[in-house]
Amino acid sequence: MTNRGVLGTSNWRISAPNSPLPARRPALDSIAYVNGSFVPLSEAKVSVLDRGFLFADGIYEVSAVLDGKLVDNASHLARLERSVGEIKLKLPATVERITEIQKELIARNKVANGLVYLQVTRGADKGRDFAFPKGDVRSSLVMFTSEKDIINAASAKTGINVITVPDIRWERRDIKSVALLAQVLAKQAAAEAGAGEAWMLEDGYVTEGGSSSAFILTKDDVIVTRKNSNAILPGCTRKAVVALAEERQLRVEERSFTVAEALAAKEAFATSASLFVQPVVAIDGKKVGDGKPGPMATRLREIYVEFAKATAV
Amino acid sequence: MTNRGVLGTSNWRISAPNSPLPARRPALDSIAYVNGSFVPLSEAKVSVLDRGFLFADGIYEVSAVLDGKLVDNASHLARLERSVGEIKLKLPATVERITEIQKELIARNKVANGLVYLQVTRGADKGRDFAFPKGDVRSSLVMFTSEKDIINAASAKTGINVITVPDIRWERRDIKSVALLAQVLAKQAAAEAGAGEAWMLEDGYVTEGGSSSAFILTKDDVIVTRKNSNAILPGCTRKAVVALAEERQLRVEERSFTVAEALAAKEAFATSASLFVQPVVAIDGKKVGDGKPGPMATRLREIYVEFAKATAV
Repeated sequence: MTNRGVLGTSNWRISAPNSPLPARRPALDSIAYVNGSFVPLSEAKVSVLDRGFLFADGIYEVSAVLDGKLVDNASHLARLERSVGEIKLKLPATVERITEIQKELIARNKVANGLVYLQVTRGADKGRDFAFPKGDVRSSLVMFTSEKDIINAASAKTGINVITVPDIRWERRDIKSVALLAQVLAKQAAAEAGAGEAWMLEDGYVTEGGSSSAFILTKDDVIVTRKNSNAILPGCTRKAVVALAEERQLRVEERSFTVAEALAAKEAFATSASLFVQPVVAIDGKKVGDGKPGPMATRLREIYVEFAKATAV
Repeated sequence: MTNRGVLGTSNWRISAPNSPLPARRPALDSIAYVNGSFVPLSEAKVSVLDRGFLFADGIYEVSAVLDGKLVDNASHLARLERSVGEIKLKLPATVERITEIQKELIARNKVANGLVYLQVTRGADKGRDFAFPKGDVRSSLVMFTSEKDIINAASAKTGINVITVPDIRWERRDIKSVALLAQVLAKQAAAEAGAGEAWMLEDGYVTEGGSSSAFILTKDDVIVTRKNSNAILPGCTRKAVVALAEERQLRVEERSFTVAEALAAKEAFATSASLFVQPVVAIDGKKVGDGKPGPMATRLREIYVEFAKATAV
């Protein structure tokens, strides 16, 4: 509650009416979790020696909240366990305990609809060495929440424009690390172009968005999204949407596609924990389909929302 | 001074006798600089919303200290200005002011020989958005020192072993960003192999070490190091060593080299601000030359130390 005076209201949020994607801004007077303590976000701090700060030596996850419940959270925590395993980072708490903390933060912050962010790093050693700490250095765990009305997001009705940028990231994009500078630059380029996302291109093909998975619907009504590999993050929402589509006998192909294919497609869309399914209506200023959210993206969004509500815990 | 009891002595250092490269460990009771304040390092903290922590959206530099004076520091601060310019990050203080703070830290911590670390990030916004903060968010500046006797480092006499690993980093390695997870993994692999550095390989050629530039001396007495490009960091010590060698009419070629060439070379060595010139005596367990520090690396080290002492300020 420390910053209520500054912010003017305890329910402070940014509605971001001019932004194609609503901002993920937690209220600074909300409660965060930092290494065992619940503290006001405005006072939530880590050591300057934290390896997350010095080396981007950390992993993160974002889970959506609907009606106070966590959406597809087991999938996010399974991916967390995979990511930390790939960089040999030991979680400082069990997945069960992490889930408890997520729920406690939702309760303390009275989050009805929004996001829970979590980041684990290899902790703060006594100094700065690239190699892993040798002594008994505990991994850091930081979590905070933000409000976001994902279901009623304006961009779901209008669709978003995307721009394309070269994919200059490292070769282990399957690890959800906080080494996100390439994504920051890609998404800043999108923001400057008035677009809601940047699709990254490698060897002529779309890999994924700066913070979302990329899909198209071909003229033949095939839903296409890139196959999982080291080249992309294994999206949790991507995985759920593919499974939900297949359950409904929709045709899905997991393969790479080009921008030309996307521009010739009936529809394009993006998925992520904080967007669910988001229609893409233009790429680099060129319309996809008729330049409006298409029926498949709209339908998959409805299906995903139904799934999310039915399975949230 | 808060941790003197824990550490047992106010002069606590790690001498790391079993480590091929002495650890860069600042004493936790030393003074750090964080956004305008001088605070004990053990209490030096940044917000969990700092974009350095969340996105690796930051740049760093390390300058050596000899006899209480900064070595080649103008070169490091020029590179800092270049790096922040490349990611459109505004320095929160002038280079002159940063230099003053470096000197004040050296004085406060009575650093005779060691390192000054500095990191600038795009600051802490009110929430977490990939794109740059829109409001008036001040960049963060964090600095701390560590003790290190670079001149008398044991590894300069024994040489170090290096291993090779694939270079999996992003495509803008010329930017000295804190998105260092690939380097962390490379240097951890080296540490596990009992080696002092990892040389990274791309398309069959050595790019550079995890935290140093890579050199060889060919059978024809040509000093070879990779040409600057987006593929490597423009090393400050590399630059100075090349200039010093050329002043002395030594033959230098800036071009890529393979591991096979390095193994067939007379000598190999590494340069960095915290190593100066460091002989490399084996690569992946195979001797370079006679497996001992060679005369050229030894001579260049002496030349660099002379330069460093003469020009430190």
